[in-house]
Amino acid sequence: MSASLPKTYRRVVLARRPPGEPGPDDFRVETVPMPEPGLNQVLVRGIYLSLDPYMRGRMRDSASYAKPVGIDEVMEGGVVGEVVRSNNPGFAVGDIVEERLGWQEYGLSNGHTLRKIDPALAPISTANGILGMPGMTAWFGLYEIGQPKPGETVVVSAASGAVGQTVGQLAKLSGCRVVGIAGGARKCAFVREELGFDACVDYKSEKDLGAALAEACPNGIDVYFDNVGGPVTDAVIPLLNFWARIPLCGQVSGYNADGVETGPRLTMQMVGKRVTQRGFIVSDFAPRFEPARRIMGELVRSGRLRFREDVVDGIENAPGAFIGLLRGENFGKLLVRLGPESA
Amino acid sequence: MSASLPKTYRRVVLARRPPGEPGPDDFRVETVPMPEPGLNQVLVRGIYLSLDPYMRGRMRDSASYAKPVGIDEVMEGGVVGEVVRSNNPGFAVGDIVEERLGWQEYGLSNGHTLRKIDPALAPISTANGILGMPGMTAWFGLYEIGQPKPGETVVVSAASGAVGQTVGQLAKLSGCRVVGIAGGARKCAFVREELGFDACVDYKSEKDLGAALAEACPNGIDVYFDNVGGPVTDAVIPLLNFWARIPLCGQVSGYNADGVETGPRLTMQMVGKRVTQRGFIVSDFAPRFEPARRIMGELVRSGRLRFREDVVDGIENAPGAFIGLLRGENFGKLLVRLGPESA
Repeated sequence: MSASLPKTYRRVVLARRPPGEPGPDDFRVETVPMPEPGLNQVLVRGIYLSLDPYMRGRMRDSASYAKPVGIDEVMEGGVVGEVVRSNNPGFAVGDIVEERLGWQEYGLSNGHTLRKIDPALAPISTANGILGMPGMTAWFGLYEIGQPKPGETVVVSAASGAVGQTVGQLAKLSGCRVVGIAGGARKCAFVREELGFDACVDYKSEKDLGAALAEACPNGIDVYFDNVGGPVTDAVIPLLNFWARIPLCGQVSGYNADGVETGPRLTMQMVGKRVTQRGFIVSDFAPRFEPARRIMGELVRSGRLRFREDVVDGIENAPGAFIGLLRGENFGKLLVRLGPESA
Repeated sequence: MSASLPKTYRRVVLARRPPGEPGPDDFRVETVPMPEPGLNQVLVRGIYLSLDPYMRGRMRDSASYAKPVGIDEVMEGGVVGEVVRSNNPGFAVGDIVEERLGWQEYGLSNGHTLRKIDPALAPISTANGILGMPGMTAWFGLYEIGQPKPGETVVVSAASGAVGQTVGQLAKLSGCRVVGIAGGARKCAFVREELGFDACVDYKSEKDLGAALAEACPNGIDVYFDNVGGPVTDAVIPLLNFWARIPLCGQVSGYNADGVETGPRLTMQMVGKRVTQRGFIVSDFAPRFEPARRIMGELVRSGRLRFREDVVDGIENAPGAFIGLLRGENFGKLLVRLGPESA
C-alpha cells in the first residue's frame, strides 16, 4: 500500500509576459487539486526542480525551437521526483524518475519520456545537473562542436554555472588549458581552486576584459564555449586563433532584452581566422545521451568530475531564484527543493 | 628568338593607408625599368589583372590571414599573362600563365606557383574568374560549407559579382531554389534572366529588404552565402531555417570601415536554429582546386555555367576601378586589361 497523498499541491504558472527583466508579478503560485493518474499514467512527487536560463525564452510569445509557455500555464522545467502512484507497468511506486513536469510539486506522466534514475549511482539531484540536461549540453557542445585537442586553450563563460563548470572540467581532463569567465571573486576562486581551471577572469571587476583574457590566454583561444554572448563574447573574439570553434550554447546576456540589442560586427574576424560558430540544442543529441551519461557517471563517482549545486527550498521561491539566475546571482547549478528525498 | 621588350613598364603601388574609403591618392602609378629574369626565373607580360574585394584588407596595417602590402610596395593581385622570357625549363616563351604578380604590367616569377593555362579550354581571362580564385571560392564555399541539398533555398549576396554569379549557377545546377541579392535593376535582371536565378532582390531599391527576401524565399533560407555582411546579413538571418549554413566568404560592406561597425546581435537566433557559420579562405582548399576546376571547365565549355566580366583598360585605371568595386559599381568579374592577348 502506498502512503496517502495531500488533497492539493502547489505550482507556478506564467501570469504575464515581461518585456524585459522578469519580476515576481510575472509568475503566480497556485494551489490546485491532486490529480488521479489515468490509464498508463504515473503520478510523480517532485523532489528537485531544475531552473535554467533557457526558460526565459519560453516566456516569450515568439517562434523559437520550442513552443512558448501560455499565460496561466505551468512554467516548463525538468523535475527529479518519486513515483507515488502508477498505472503504468514500467514504473513502480518508489521509483526515482526524471521528467519535464514543470514548476510544480506533483505532476502526471504518461511514461513515454519518464526516465528512471538509479539512486545508487550518484546523488539523484545530478539527474537535473551534471548527469542531466546541463551535463549533456556541456559534453556534446564541447566534444561535437568544440572538438578540443590537448594543449589547446578552451574558454568558457558562466564558468561556475551548471554547464560551464562541466565544460571546463571535461576540457581539463582532455588535456586543454582551461580559462573560465565568471562574475565575482568568490566564483572565480571556486572555479580555479575547486574545479581546477588554469585561470578565471572576473568580468565584473576587470576594467579591460580583453586585456585580462589575453593575459590568461597567452596562446590565444581555440574553443570558446559561449553561454552568454554580449560584451563577454566581444572581448573573446579578437583573441581567437585560426580555425577556432564556437559552440553557441546560449546568450543569457540578451535574454531579458526587449528587442534586438546591438554590438560590434565581428564576422570579418571570423572569415580570415576560419572560425566555425555553431548553434545547438542539447536535445539534438538525445539518442546519444546514455553513453555520455555513463562515462560522466564514472567520472563523478571517482571524484574526477565535481559539481556545485545552489539549492533553494520551496516552490514558492522558484520565481525569485529564477530572476536571480538571469542576473548571475546563483552559484552553481540552481535547483529548487520541492520536497524531501524520502517522504 | 623572342620579340624585343620595352625598356620600362608601369605598376601601381600603395602610396598610403586610407582610414576609410580609398581614394585615387592612396595609389601611385610608377614607371620602372624592365627586369632581367635570373636563374630559374620567368618574366611574364600581364594581360589581365584581377581586382577583388579582399585587396582592401591588404591595404590595412593589421594582423590578418595574409601579410599587408607595404607602403610603396606593389599592390597584390592575380594576373593572367604570357611568358616573354624564361630561364626556367618548366616554362617556354609564349606560355599563358597565372600567378600573383600584383598590379603591374610585367612581373618575375620563380616558377614555384606559376600555373600554366590551356587557352584552348576556355578564354584565358577565366583563369582570374570562374576558373580561378573567385570560381574556387564559389565552389568550395558552397559545397564544403553550404552543403546544399536539392529543393533547399540558397541565397547569395553580391549576386552579379565574380563569386556570387558562380555560387548561384552552381546551386541552381544542384537543384536548389536560388535567390540573389544585388544592387540595381540592371544587375537583378541579369541575375534572373541571364544566369537563371529564381529571383533577385534589389537591396538598393527595396525599402524593406527583409520583407522582399521573405517573399522571394517562401520556404525560408537554408544556405546563405555571405559575401557582404552588414545590413544585408541582418535581413537574411531572421529568415534562416533550422540547420541553416552560412559560408562566410567576405564582408565587403565593412571593408572601408575605420574601426569596428555595430549592428544587431543575431547570435541567439543562431542557437535555436542550430545555424552553422564558418569563415573560410579559398587557399585552404588549394590542393583540391584542380579537380573542381576541371568540372567547372566542362560546365563552362558546355554553356551550363556562364560568366560576365567587367573589363577596364590600362593599369592606370586600376585604382579607380578598385574604388568602384568596393562601392559595388562593377557589373561582373572586374578585370584590368594590361595588354593584348597576343602581342
